[in-house]
Amino acid sequence: MSVTAAKGFTAAGIAAGIKESGNPDLALVVNNGPRRAAAGVFTSNRVKAAPVLWSEQVLKGGDVTAVVLNSGGANACTGPQGFQDTHATAEKVADVLGHSAGEVAVASTGLIGLLLPMDKLLPGIEKAAAQLGEHGGEKAAIAIKTTDTVHKTAVYEGEGWSVGGMAKGAGMLAPGLATMLVVLTTNADLDSSTLDKALREATRLTFDRIDSDGCMSTNDTVLLLASGASGTAPEYDAFAEGVRTVCGDLARQLIGDAEGASKDIRIEVTGAATEDDAVEVGRSIARNNLLKCAIHGEDPNWGRVLSAIGTTRAAFEPDRLNVAINGVWVCKNGGVGEDRDLVDMRYREVRITADLSAGSESAVIWANDLTADYVHENSAYSS
Amino acid sequence: MSVTAAKGFTAAGIAAGIKESGNPDLALVVNNGPRRAAAGVFTSNRVKAAPVLWSEQVLKGGDVTAVVLNSGGANACTGPQGFQDTHATAEKVADVLGHSAGEVAVASTGLIGLLLPMDKLLPGIEKAAAQLGEHGGEKAAIAIKTTDTVHKTAVYEGEGWSVGGMAKGAGMLAPGLATMLVVLTTNADLDSSTLDKALREATRLTFDRIDSDGCMSTNDTVLLLASGASGTAPEYDAFAEGVRTVCGDLARQLIGDAEGASKDIRIEVTGAATEDDAVEVGRSIARNNLLKCAIHGEDPNWGRVLSAIGTTRAAFEPDRLNVAINGVWVCKNGGVGEDRDLVDMRYREVRITADLSAGSESAVIWANDLTADYVHENSAYSS
Repeated sequence: MSVTAAKGFTAAGIAAGIKESGNPDLALVVNNGPRRAAAGVFTSNRVKAAPVLWSEQVLKGGDVTAVVLNSGGANACTGPQGFQDTHATAEKVADVLGHSAGEVAVASTGLIGLLLPMDKLLPGIEKAAAQLGEHGGEKAAIAIKTTDTVHKTAVYEGEGWSVGGMAKGAGMLAPGLATMLVVLTTNADLDSSTLDKALREATRLTFDRIDSDGCMSTNDTVLLLASGASGTAPEYDAFAEGVRTVCGDLARQLIGDAEGASKDIRIEVTGAATEDDAVEVGRSIARNNLLKCAIHGEDPNWGRVLSAIGTTRAAFEPDRLNVAINGVWVCKNGGVGEDRDLVDMRYREVRITADLSAGSESAVIWANDLTADYVHENSAYSS
Repeated sequence: MSVTAAKGFTAAGIAAGIKESGNPDLALVVNNGPRRAAAGVFTSNRVKAAPVLWSEQVLKGGDVTAVVLNSGGANACTGPQGFQDTHATAEKVADVLGHSAGEVAVASTGLIGLLLPMDKLLPGIEKAAAQLGEHGGEKAAIAIKTTDTVHKTAVYEGEGWSVGGMAKGAGMLAPGLATMLVVLTTNADLDSSTLDKALREATRLTFDRIDSDGCMSTNDTVLLLASGASGTAPEYDAFAEGVRTVCGDLARQLIGDAEGASKDIRIEVTGAATEDDAVEVGRSIARNNLLKCAIHGEDPNWGRVLSAIGTTRAAFEPDRLNVAINGVWVCKNGGVGEDRDLVDMRYREVRITADLSAGSESAVIWANDLTADYVHENSAYSS
């Protein structure tokens, strides 16, 4: 399953010793063709990690033969040495596989500001290459975990073709262009520009609409590789739906495993004048720490929803705002609505609907609550 | 002291029974003249509480005779009834004092979305009026507390004139125009347009540059009242400095008492191309939950500073960014700098300097860390 669900791909996941814990920390995904088309989207953070800078250049060529991913270090804010290390990593993969380094994408995740232990990483690539296999997808997904408690994979079956993927990410999840590390593979016989279009459409509606903690990573990378091994070239719409389905599935898994979270919050903004308005309002609600605490306390505190909406530039009139929490319209026309005691918040998923009464556009943003566990996990991460 | 430090003012603070705890919850500040000039700045949240909507209109007249403030309920998102209640509150003060309701400002703080208990508030106004005195400033400051652990007052002595003030606020502190409830008084003999100019300049550099949790209130109000009782009309620059000093003092006290905080974080952005850039970068750093957790854990995690800077539109090159924490330049030229183990973070105040190397402008933003206590306090506030 995972990135080896689609024919034409092999993968491996091993422990190279990058992590002091000895846990798996290096993954290799190889496209065995016949086609090697690829597309990628990357963080919009202006402080970009070395592997992001490298892979952006690789993707401009449109072909990717292999992706090497490591956890245990982000290789971000590491200066010229960090970039040389990424380059050396790609060269090593190219050597081992007998391909060009210009077709090797690199992705890293972990602590910012530390150089990678290349004396462990480079031998790890040889070890991973020796273990490449058609069933290596699960191990690859496991090797890219950092604070993730579970590994994340998804598969979509089309007619004669399929899309599979893996993702990691549990914190610093906030939409830029893409969030976290994701590798998707397909055996569909499509060119890189078609892949690019489908991938951008999918990420805009999935990874770009999750927000665990408002913090945008320096390393976000989403790659889509096509082997063409099915010999099938699906219709664009069907393929795009497949990519979107896998991205949506993985995005939902990321929110479900966010650091310290006890609630997954589905924020639907309706009645917006434009989709941009709906997204801006959704994100403002998603990032309101006071509301995130209230949801953690199972408190349907709709006043905090309104105060978050009020900070946006979206079109609305305060006295026409309506808010429902888990189906109960606790705020009507900007004031008190149905009895807040009717709201049942015992379950992990909490649904907030914010109706702006200003149009017919809508958007869904997924977020998490803010918990003491999040604070504990992130006050001790690097120490 | 407090709002009665300047001659011409009387004040009172009493328990009207608005709070179920029986703690003081109603304050009255009266300007006995001879002048009754005033200026005010209010939240830029588009969802504004009824007392904000009322007081904005009152301030347009330029004269304020009295300010009535209650804790125990924000009277926000309370619809037409909430506005009628604010109006009735001002009318009651006017009746008791023998003035016009059009010169009575109203401010409320507490939970959003609940109507105020007018059967307790209106008799409370009579009780407060009976206790008005030239030493009532402290009691008034105490009566406006919500989750504040201490009351906040400040005084500045000019030559022949003075400025005094009180403030409340411990959460939902993020700059809009003004943040929290603040009443400043002066015996200087100045007109309302001069007061307005001095107040806007002061709030822009003080209250607008604190950010405890990124959450903007619906009720933020800062008022400056002048009695002219000193008979002195100070030079504008001297007066503006006095107002700025009192505002800065109160703003610092608000950060020092922020909900659940264990650290006060002074973020200075230097080397910016424009002051706006410096403020944008400072706020982005101030609102980064991951960094706020790291500071709580006494972890000089400069990578999180860089990832926050990278989300802004400010002018900078990633490889020219420098970051110091408590004087140690842990990040130089976008990469690893001095040894992070040199950073001593035992004390409550933490100083972060972010040098953008893009110009000569700078700004200081004050923030707090993110703690489990903040989560606990805000997940149980309304339940």
